[in-house]
Amino acid sequence: MKNNNQNEIIKKAEVLTEALPYFSKYVNKTVIIKYGGNAMGDESVLKTILQDVAALKMVGVNPILIHGGGPEINAMLDKLNIKSEFKNGLRVTSKEAMGVVEMVLCGKINKQIVSTLNTLGAKAIGLSGKDSELIKVEKLDDGSGVDYGYVGRIIKINSDILNTLKQDYIPVIATVGVDKDGNSYNINADIAAGAIGGALAAERLLFLTDIDGIRKDEKDPKSLISHITVGEIKKMIKEGTISGGMIPKVNACCEAINSGVKSVEIMNGTIPHSILLELFTVEGVGTMVTN
Amino acid sequence: MKNNNQNEIIKKAEVLTEALPYFSKYVNKTVIIKYGGNAMGDESVLKTILQDVAALKMVGVNPILIHGGGPEINAMLDKLNIKSEFKNGLRVTSKEAMGVVEMVLCGKINKQIVSTLNTLGAKAIGLSGKDSELIKVEKLDDGSGVDYGYVGRIIKINSDILNTLKQDYIPVIATVGVDKDGNSYNINADIAAGAIGGALAAERLLFLTDIDGIRKDEKDPKSLISHITVGEIKKMIKEGTISGGMIPKVNACCEAINSGVKSVEIMNGTIPHSILLELFTVEGVGTMVTN
Amino acid sequence: MKNNNQNEIIKKAEVLTEALPYFSKYVNKTVIIKYGGNAMGDESVLKTILQDVAALKMVGVNPILIHGGGPEINAMLDKLNIKSEFKNGLRVTSKEAMGVVEMVLCGKINKQIVSTLNTLGAKAIGLSGKDSELIKVEKLDDGSGVDYGYVGRIIKINSDILNTLKQDYIPVIATVGVDKDGNSYNINADIAAGAIGGALAAERLLFLTDIDGIRKDEKDPKSLISHITVGEIKKMIKEGTISGGMIPKVNACCEAINSGVKSVEIMNGTIPHSILLELFTVEGVGTMVTN
Amino acid sequence: MKNNNQNEIIKKAEVLTEALPYFSKYVNKTVIIKYGGNAMGDESVLKTILQDVAALKMVGVNPILIHGGGPEINAMLDKLNIKSEFKNGLRVTSKEAMGVVEMVLCGKINKQIVSTLNTLGAKAIGLSGKDSELIKVEKLDDGSGVDYGYVGRIIKINSDILNTLKQDYIPVIATVGVDKDGNSYNINADIAAGAIGGALAAERLLFLTDIDGIRKDEKDPKSLISHITVGEIKKMIKEGTISGGMIPKVNACCEAINSGVKSVEIMNGTIPHSILLELFTVEGVGTMVTN
Amino acid sequence: MKNNNQNEIIKKAEVLTEALPYFSKYVNKTVIIKYGGNAMGDESVLKTILQDVAALKMVGVNPILIHGGGPEINAMLDKLNIKSEFKNGLRVTSKEAMGVVEMVLCGKINKQIVSTLNTLGAKAIGLSGKDSELIKVEKLDDGSGVDYGYVGRIIKINSDILNTLKQDYIPVIATVGVDKDGNSYNINADIAAGAIGGALAAERLLFLTDIDGIRKDEKDPKSLISHITVGEIKKMIKEGTISGGMIPKVNACCEAINSGVKSVEIMNGTIPHSILLELFTVEGVGTMVTN
Amino acid sequence: MKNNNQNEIIKKAEVLTEALPYFSKYVNKTVIIKYGGNAMGDESVLKTILQDVAALKMVGVNPILIHGGGPEINAMLDKLNIKSEFKNGLRVTSKEAMGVVEMVLCGKINKQIVSTLNTLGAKAIGLSGKDSELIKVEKLDDGSGVDYGYVGRIIKINSDILNTLKQDYIPVIATVGVDKDGNSYNINADIAAGAIGGALAAERLLFLTDIDGIRKDEKDPKSLISHITVGEIKKMIKEGTISGGMIPKVNACCEAINSGVKSVEIMNGTIPHSILLELFTVEGVGTMVTN
Repeated sequence: MKNNNQNEIIKKAEVLTEALPYFSKYVNKTVIIKYGGNAMGDESVLKTILQDVAALKMVGVNPILIHGGGPEINAMLDKLNIKSEFKNGLRVTSKEAMGVVEMVLCGKINKQIVSTLNTLGAKAIGLSGKDSELIKVEKLDDGSGVDYGYVGRIIKINSDILNTLKQDYIPVIATVGVDKDGNSYNINADIAAGAIGGALAAERLLFLTDIDGIRKDEKDPKSLISHITVGEIKKMIKEGTISGGMIPKVNACCEAINSGVKSVEIMNGTIPHSILLELFTVEGVGTMVTN
Repeated sequence: MKNNNQNEIIKKAEVLTEALPYFSKYVNKTVIIKYGGNAMGDESVLKTILQDVAALKMVGVNPILIHGGGPEINAMLDKLNIKSEFKNGLRVTSKEAMGVVEMVLCGKINKQIVSTLNTLGAKAIGLSGKDSELIKVEKLDDGSGVDYGYVGRIIKINSDILNTLKQDYIPVIATVGVDKDGNSYNINADIAAGAIGGALAAERLLFLTDIDGIRKDEKDPKSLISHITVGEIKKMIKEGTISGGMIPKVNACCEAINSGVKSVEIMNGTIPHSILLELFTVEGVGTMVTN
Repeated sequence: MKNNNQNEIIKKAEVLTEALPYFSKYVNKTVIIKYGGNAMGDESVLKTILQDVAALKMVGVNPILIHGGGPEINAMLDKLNIKSEFKNGLRVTSKEAMGVVEMVLCGKINKQIVSTLNTLGAKAIGLSGKDSELIKVEKLDDGSGVDYGYVGRIIKINSDILNTLKQDYIPVIATVGVDKDGNSYNINADIAAGAIGGALAAERLLFLTDIDGIRKDEKDPKSLISHITVGEIKKMIKEGTISGGMIPKVNACCEAINSGVKSVEIMNGTIPHSILLELFTVEGVGTMVTN
Repeated sequence: MKNNNQNEIIKKAEVLTEALPYFSKYVNKTVIIKYGGNAMGDESVLKTILQDVAALKMVGVNPILIHGGGPEINAMLDKLNIKSEFKNGLRVTSKEAMGVVEMVLCGKINKQIVSTLNTLGAKAIGLSGKDSELIKVEKLDDGSGVDYGYVGRIIKINSDILNTLKQDYIPVIATVGVDKDGNSYNINADIAAGAIGGALAAERLLFLTDIDGIRKDEKDPKSLISHITVGEIKKMIKEGTISGGMIPKVNACCEAINSGVKSVEIMNGTIPHSILLELFTVEGVGTMVTN
Repeated sequence: MKNNNQNEIIKKAEVLTEALPYFSKYVNKTVIIKYGGNAMGDESVLKTILQDVAALKMVGVNPILIHGGGPEINAMLDKLNIKSEFKNGLRVTSKEAMGVVEMVLCGKINKQIVSTLNTLGAKAIGLSGKDSELIKVEKLDDGSGVDYGYVGRIIKINSDILNTLKQDYIPVIATVGVDKDGNSYNINADIAAGAIGGALAAERLLFLTDIDGIRKDEKDPKSLISHITVGEIKKMIKEGTISGGMIPKVNACCEAINSGVKSVEIMNGTIPHSILLELFTVEGVGTMVTN
Repeated sequence: MKNNNQNEIIKKAEVLTEALPYFSKYVNKTVIIKYGGNAMGDESVLKTILQDVAALKMVGVNPILIHGGGPEINAMLDKLNIKSEFKNGLRVTSKEAMGVVEMVLCGKINKQIVSTLNTLGAKAIGLSGKDSELIKVEKLDDGSGVDYGYVGRIIKINSDILNTLKQDYIPVIATVGVDKDGNSYNINADIAAGAIGGALAAERLLFLTDIDGIRKDEKDPKSLISHITVGEIKKMIKEGTISGGMIPKVNACCEAINSGVKSVEIMNGTIPHSILLELFTVEGVGTMVTN
């Protein structure tokens, strides 16, 4: 042995022995990584996430990155002096606003991610829901009588292009939907990630957020739940243990499982290399949701 | 025979007999269509062009559409109050301006074309030169000592992604280049089309412009040249018969031929269905350039 | 545009736009062309038919040509002083006569068609029902007590050889049947064409005749029917609207549809390039029969 | 052991042990069998030859049968009162005579052989040199100034169709040639067999004749030569040991070897099952010619 | 014809004509040959058996050789002074004894057979039931309360390795079983051969013994049965016609048929080339058992 | 993060990030592991080695294990009272002794390793140099005039069987050689491992020994050399820095490199999980030899 002390060697051997069985488990399997929301702005966090994604590709896993927008969209809407109204918690989206959202999401954020992955040695391809009609939607009608404008409800995932690309490339998907006439729509990125994962029967779907996962007691960080089933989630919502902003997130998890994803994880994407730790260690990070 | 008169029937049979041999010639072959510049704004022209492109795909040809920007880019630069300076006929491009160019080109124009092709029954995928580092560039240095900012010179085409897609999809390429550090660059769309055509050993490269082709006498529309060689072009430039704004265009033709495209056409894209007429009739339209 | 006037260009573009969707429809599909009977003698008609067949092959369609005999058979029977007797409208066929029929059909007519197709740039292969037992028959027994000699009823089509050849060659089939002991039999060429079409699940079966199709009123050329179903044919026979020599022809159409051909056409093969017009124009020629 | 006596068992085991290595030698290999001339008329001989050919196919060898005409051609020419003239030992062939030759060869003899092979359980396909232009010829000009009419010299073998068929079918080839305009020609069947064998790089070419092979002393049946080289043949011709009617036959052997056949055999086809004995026993029958 | 007399030629042709149809029957089919027991010691018998096995491989059959031990095992147990006890006719096998059995079977006999096959031009691979857990067993418990030690009952055949090898190699299998913890077990070689044959849906399983087959009357050599069904065997056991040491052998035959082998043969392996005679002659040798 | 402290997490992430690039490097590559000699007896060491080998297989590497004998061979020779004589440092091997060596090596040690790998979830196949004539040898003649008996010199590696197996199985090779007559020979296991590695163009060859590697100063454990070239080794031997028992080992390394192995490692196999540490950490263990 060269310059390592004996302890470190034993430690390394243990981590390797622990990680090895997971590699074979994920080789040639599809792993969806959804990243977005508040954490979107932090460049250093994004960097380690993309490093992990590129590393996954190199060991033979097929990662697919799905992203939403971030502060840049609002900044551009402001610059162009386009105002937004919110109804029932949803942004009412005009054609003009949707044009700006799409332009920033597909022409700026998506291409930056693609470019960074490429400089890390991967071969990434940027897609929006318009490409090959990947995310087909119809205008949202929630029965409330409110016209939300260009806000869509996903009706079909055309996953052919992902099957074509996933072996040799990393698809990076901007969550814009398209209707039958070719119009662009705002969609919920978590729901889109679940629907795409379902269409591909993905092995894993990782929601990279800025929280550690689901807690038994929202206020106690030590009450983090490692593993939960869809049934248990529904019970916790009913009992009010899960509430507020957490509800849409866990609902997205449940929908993903129902549409065919094998397991979904709510996890803290700001921990460096959280993806590798989740996939290749026994303990993992965050809360795993399964059936 | 049903409702056609006899003459019309004979005429139809003639066109079909004429067209048939060309079909087998182009099936499974790559045909690059470059569209851009002034004509970019006219929606009805774009519509018949995209109809032809979709029709080509349906008969088994592999079309690839390459587009530049148009009036929308300048409109957005104006709205955002970004000024451009021109030196030696080239737009000096700041990082900020390049960001806007890329955003409009990749996030708006490219996605609109993709979406229209999809509504016509094709399966189109939008790409920029950043995707899988399709168009690798370095900063332009023309020896004049002028710093043009983010204006690039193409150094490599990574055509893998096009080979992966071209059988089942129509790739639609926004001509943005990327350097080794992932920065975006303005590039000449004609040169990009030629380089991509060369990398794919394309059967045909069609430059859809708003002129009919090369004329022996620039002022005489009847002097249109049907076929010309690279050698003859060089001679005509030397003699001054080809001059002015035509020179960069014919130079792009010559570079495309040199890089491996079998034949290049300068043709009038505003003639309805000019692509079909060019590919499937004996006479064709425009000026064909070969070695 | 070069030497065409503007109108002609628009016309051509229209024909091409009309024809294109049909190309993709027929590529790699099997189209059976049955040619025979009275028209068999006219060399110039045969020439444009074979040109169309060769052209189909070139654009990726898989045509199969099925032919009967013609005046040459009777001429040879006369020269060799072999007499024929007719009973119930069928030629009673002696072993000696059958030998002559087969010899002329397979050794003369079939090889001439093959040879002409080859000079047109196609690769044709001549077959009879004996090759690989393509058309297996048994001796006809119509219950009338008449012995028709070597007249056969088709009991099986061995289409393997056609599947082997149809991709790269044009099979040209002389309609001679073979029984389990290797004897040759006279068969109805229309029925044979339908049975072969059914065995191959052919996309189209074109009966090239010297009439325009089925008429509502036999005496009124303007009453030509464009499209008719098997059910409607049966009704028209019952009502007496279809009668006489037309009945065996339409019955052959119905049998072909029943055995699996997608659509059958009775059409006038003497119209130049009638095959192209039928396959690649909206209106087509003749009467189409479907289920 | 059941009903065999001990000696017979040992004998059988010996023949099997002797034959086995040859099977693997010929599996998937092309063996050309040329049959024709005088022996053509004897039905019982033909029967055991075709049994052997069918048996070869069943054990995985790819036999190709090439035949000339026989007494039937002259009988038909007589019946139709067509006279033939001979010059320099070659039949001067009129267009009319050639028509009859082709008709009998392709429409009668060829189809009979095909039919018999099929009843023996093989799948045979009859071909003439016209099919897919298998045997391309030009008019013979031997420099003597004599016009032999439709007598051809082979200029090209288009063996594609044989490669397509030989795996699953037994091609049975009537030796008629075709020129660039589609005309039929009389050709030497031995030369045709050699040229086809060469084009396919055949493992073996068997000339089934009615003589036992080449003799050292033409009058002494015990002087049969088992194996001879092209060089030795040339020497024997020079010395006059091989003379007369034997010369064209041995010349055909030499040409076959030169064009790429691995070994050629002159053998007595009238010995029952001579083909099996030649291929699967150590001693074989006849005279083998190699380089 | 060369040096053979006429009679011998006819005889040879007959054997070949008889053998040919069988070749195609067995090409690419799996034939299991079980050899063992008393005959194991005779080197000259083994030699002709291995010659036949190598010859089968050469003609495209896929033979698999399964062998038990022989006198060498007892000799080695004696040398090492290891005693064996028998209970209920089975050798009680200690761990120590099993180690010796395995060592001799896999390290000596198996490798000698492999080596001899290789010198005969085949490519043989030696396997035991441990390789890739080919023969998975559990400790035998026959309900008698006796502990037989390392005597196993087969519970699973992992035939993957045989499917991988059988095309290009001759697998030679020493009948040692392995339990879930990797321990070695003594097993009945006949039962193992049947189970392996069943797992591979073998065409034939040949038990090479030193008797001629099953007799109607055990004492009358002329009463040999050529063909018998599983049902008839059961009846003969019940009636006492089959008795004593023959019972386990015929039971192994019945089990093999039940597990999926198409036909099983009890035959005399000491007849030279008995395998070839069985497979390639109409009469065969021994008694064939089928369903 | 669940129960790990922050430091441990960072440590794990580091090891994973370090290991990941190596996985893709070795996937589908051949890694030869040679184990033998003194360390052969220690069961616990063997266990962690086989665990690593099984783990390699699971992550898509193709390991091949090559082993020599150990104390068991001498124990058996003693029991059977077979004496050995040594000349020039080589064991003179009688036929009788060789039989025992082969029996223990192939029938005992090899099968135990195979069995252990199988219980670890891998599919292992035991081979000796006799199987498919994997290791072809001739009798050693070192020019000294001494007859060493059955001691062989490797003349050819027939690696076909390894290419067939390595994708799905772990080949475990007992180093016995075979001559053209099928006789068994004693061979140097290190040389055999190098020759096999060369024949397969192996990525890595790991010599698992009980020393840490090559030292600059034999007496100073801190002078371990991490990387050395063949040229440097030769120089060190010449200078006497490498001497004694180390010389044959480093010579085997050099021969392996010369025959085509990409890199060879002398390393301490008694360090737990040394194989994983060598392959998947930057520092590795032992001394690497390359060209």
